[in-house]
Amino acid sequence: MGEIWEAAPRIDPVVWPGRSGTLPDSEISSFADNGYLSFPQLLSSSEAAQCLAEAEEMRWSADQDRPEVITEPQRNEVRTIFRVHRDNERFRSICLDRRILSKVEQILGSDVYIHQSRINYKPAFHGKEFFWHSDFETWHVEDGMPRTRAISVSISLTDNHEFNGPLMLIQGSHQYYIRCIGETPENHYETSLKKQEFGVPSRQAIEFLTNQGSIKAPKGGPGSALMFDCNTMHGSAGNLSPTPRTNLFVVYNSVENRLVEPFGGYAPRPEFLAEREDCSLEQP
Amino acid sequence: MGEIWEAAPRIDPVVWPGRSGTLPDSEISSFADNGYLSFPQLLSSSEAAQCLAEAEEMRWSADQDRPEVITEPQRNEVRTIFRVHRDNERFRSICLDRRILSKVEQILGSDVYIHQSRINYKPAFHGKEFFWHSDFETWHVEDGMPRTRAISVSISLTDNHEFNGPLMLIQGSHQYYIRCIGETPENHYETSLKKQEFGVPSRQAIEFLTNQGSIKAPKGGPGSALMFDCNTMHGSAGNLSPTPRTNLFVVYNSVENRLVEPFGGYAPRPEFLAEREDCSLEQP
Repeated sequence: MGEIWEAAPRIDPVVWPGRSGTLPDSEISSFADNGYLSFPQLLSSSEAAQCLAEAEEMRWSADQDRPEVITEPQRNEVRTIFRVHRDNERFRSICLDRRILSKVEQILGSDVYIHQSRINYKPAFHGKEFFWHSDFETWHVEDGMPRTRAISVSISLTDNHEFNGPLMLIQGSHQYYIRCIGETPENHYETSLKKQEFGVPSRQAIEFLTNQGSIKAPKGGPGSALMFDCNTMHGSAGNLSPTPRTNLFVVYNSVENRLVEPFGGYAPRPEFLAEREDCSLEQP
Repeated sequence: MGEIWEAAPRIDPVVWPGRSGTLPDSEISSFADNGYLSFPQLLSSSEAAQCLAEAEEMRWSADQDRPEVITEPQRNEVRTIFRVHRDNERFRSICLDRRILSKVEQILGSDVYIHQSRINYKPAFHGKEFFWHSDFETWHVEDGMPRTRAISVSISLTDNHEFNGPLMLIQGSHQYYIRCIGETPENHYETSLKKQEFGVPSRQAIEFLTNQGSIKAPKGGPGSALMFDCNTMHGSAGNLSPTPRTNLFVVYNSVENRLVEPFGGYAPRPEFLAEREDCSLEQP
């Protein structure tokens, strides 16, 4: 059974000129080559523990009728809470922390703003898998992000080990834009955040990418982090282990890459998925 | 939400006296302690390649109406073919190979016979997870296996890596008999082979076991193998990778542990799941 797919070479740079910073040249060039960098301890263990406590509190008190709160398919269990950089003081302060911002600005070569933030809960024993995808494809088609000039940062609040469904990335996949074939239904996000059915890359495309570079799943304790290009193909397996996997996920976009009309021709998705207002990053 | 569960200490030995063999004392005591042993190259790469070709041929030509052929839930794709030690010459000869039998006899301290054999296909991209379970629990309750004196051998026919859903085992879990609470429906095997819904161990039981020993998932190339006690708790994650994971799975039971009436009070399951006849292991 043949599938139609297309891999267009990336147009934009991965590392943009214009900003100096604390990331050494070796890490900058590793990010450029692989499409990601991992940090064994971006937050301290105690900061991570405080964030985890806050995330748990939010999870149990979350109003499941709010659109920002996404539940697991077939369960009334919270899977994701969006917009934590606006709705929660602790997470806002982490999202605006210079330890993160300075690295992101150095790679993107400009000031940045927060495109999206969320807490992902992958519960012990039955946390669901998430199939391979490039976030940029969605952000371009459904949100109107013009270029590949954004970075995602995933900060582990729990231990992140081989058996609790860590994030997997395909090395070097950020160098190709994989077009997902098929119509995206209207208000797609309402179901896709629970379970992907449309707009997933073809299997041949994933095979193509894994022939260019390996699958990697960096591990780490609470406070470890992964920073990856918006076009890096990634996914995660389910979690059968007794350890939940909870992380804070923040997306930074260059201020020179602000959203326009969605390229798929749809109405823009809500602000909790894709900021359009100016969200100032100045810290007091 | 509390669950009722019970962990009874194991009654029988893990390693039985009476047979010498080629496994060194260090491996025998590792099996006794951990409940499993891994072998980087039990079959040669070329034997594994021949077996894989045969397994692929069987898969595409399999009559899906035969009870020995199990398909993936919601897909007409073959997930498992049982009874390959009777229906296929190549697999029969591997199942009876002295390299395997000698090790199993050494641990079980007696002659053995084949209780069950199968090929497991975990397809690339959408191979499904299998939740934690001890095989002995099923074999005792549904098949009438009296004691924990059987060994499973899983031989990788493909590469078996971190991302294609390798077998995970809980070290030391063979030392506890975990009773699964709840009625097992009649003819349970007809659905449980596709998707487990009944008779899975409680989450507290898995937590208890992982507090005693770590989760391990030995990796290896084609021809590598895992040998584990019938009561070792194991499971496997889904496969999102582009590499299928195919293995030959053979269960050897001691001739002193032949099946009786099922301990759950049901009718015995069919022979392709649990041999009751004398299947001679003599080689020509």
